[in-house]
Amino acid sequence: MWNATVEQHRHTVHAAILDATAALIADHGLAVTMSQIAAHVGIGRATLYKYFPDVQTIVSAWHERQVTDHLDQLTAVAAECGDPGERLRMVLDSYLRLSSTAAAAGHGGHGGAAAAQVAMTLHRASHMPAAHQRLHELVTAVIAGAADAGAVRTDVPPAELAAFCLHALAAAAALPQADSRERLLDVTWAGLLPLR
Amino acid sequence: MWNATVEQHRHTVHAAILDATAALIADHGLAVTMSQIAAHVGIGRATLYKYFPDVQTIVSAWHERQVTDHLDQLTAVAAECGDPGERLRMVLDSYLRLSSTAAAAGHGGHGGAAAAQVAMTLHRASHMPAAHQRLHELVTAVIAGAADAGAVRTDVPPAELAAFCLHALAAAAALPQADSRERLLDVTWAGLLPLR
Repeated sequence: MWNATVEQHRHTVHAAILDATAALIADHGLAVTMSQIAAHVGIGRATLYKYFPDVQTIVSAWHERQVTDHLDQLTAVAAECGDPGERLRMVLDSYLRLSSTAAAAGHGGHGGAAAAQVAMTLHRASHMPAAHQRLHELVTAVIAGAADAGAVRTDVPPAELAAFCLHALAAAAALPQADSRERLLDVTWAGLLPLR
Repeated sequence: MWNATVEQHRHTVHAAILDATAALIADHGLAVTMSQIAAHVGIGRATLYKYFPDVQTIVSAWHERQVTDHLDQLTAVAAECGDPGERLRMVLDSYLRLSSTAAAAGHGGHGGAAAAQVAMTLHRASHMPAAHQRLHELVTAVIAGAADAGAVRTDVPPAELAAFCLHALAAAAALPQADSRERLLDVTWAGLLPLR
């Protein structure tokens, strides 16, 4: 009982630290200090250091949580739709919207640079090997299904098409206008279509 | 006369520092120290610090030089070819080959992570605003020419198509097999074609 409460408290503080860091980065860019984060959460610096050794580790944990959330949502979208081609389109559309939101989150005060880094991080294997690997696998599986159904070209392996999609949509997500993002989704989609 | 010689010497040492850093990163990954770089060039640490304040600045200068070299080569390729559609295809093909070489340069000893970071850096505005901006402008101009000639879709602005190309080809450049890279160039190209 006591242990469960302690565990739950730790979980709450852990999440609050990630939220505070995300908010501070949105306002001030990536040059955030441990003291600022502790003050924003309302805990002491010593307590913060019991959770995380440095800002970089917090940012990584935040990214990991964000991509995991996105993966859960994309998995749900993929499960919703029966037609393989339509499923792929919906997954790509959702991924673009989720990536754009993450990019826009950085636009608060400090704007561009932080937003670009956040958007970039969403498809950077080096920062989050596990989550990115799962994202790549999910998109690969959905593409393979669409290829089997004749909705996607079959002359390129699904895993390569998935790498193409994730990079191309990262370009789209970084654009500030919704219209531009939609256009690059269409362009990406055109790349996937069966050969004429 | 004396000044010219001093200037030339500085230029030679500067270039040697960038080369040494690139070689060390290829062998050991990005965790390179100022002492290692100085030893590799054959100069003292104090001399190295007269040229650069830290490793990050050297890596940035090396990237900047590399992208500038690539830009010069791409500009030459674009000037060579008369047909606008063919010119675009040749520029994209050259960009992919140059990016792949840069990615492979990191494959030496430390491999994957460094290669990915180098490949990534080639299309990261945050690391090299000026060079990346010129790259984007060059590709945008070539795409605009191809669109005017009817070889590329006109429903999406050339600048957006350029962002799409640079991201999609970064995905291609990161793939280890030449066949895979060629396939993603075809996929990227398919995205650019006029609507059916």
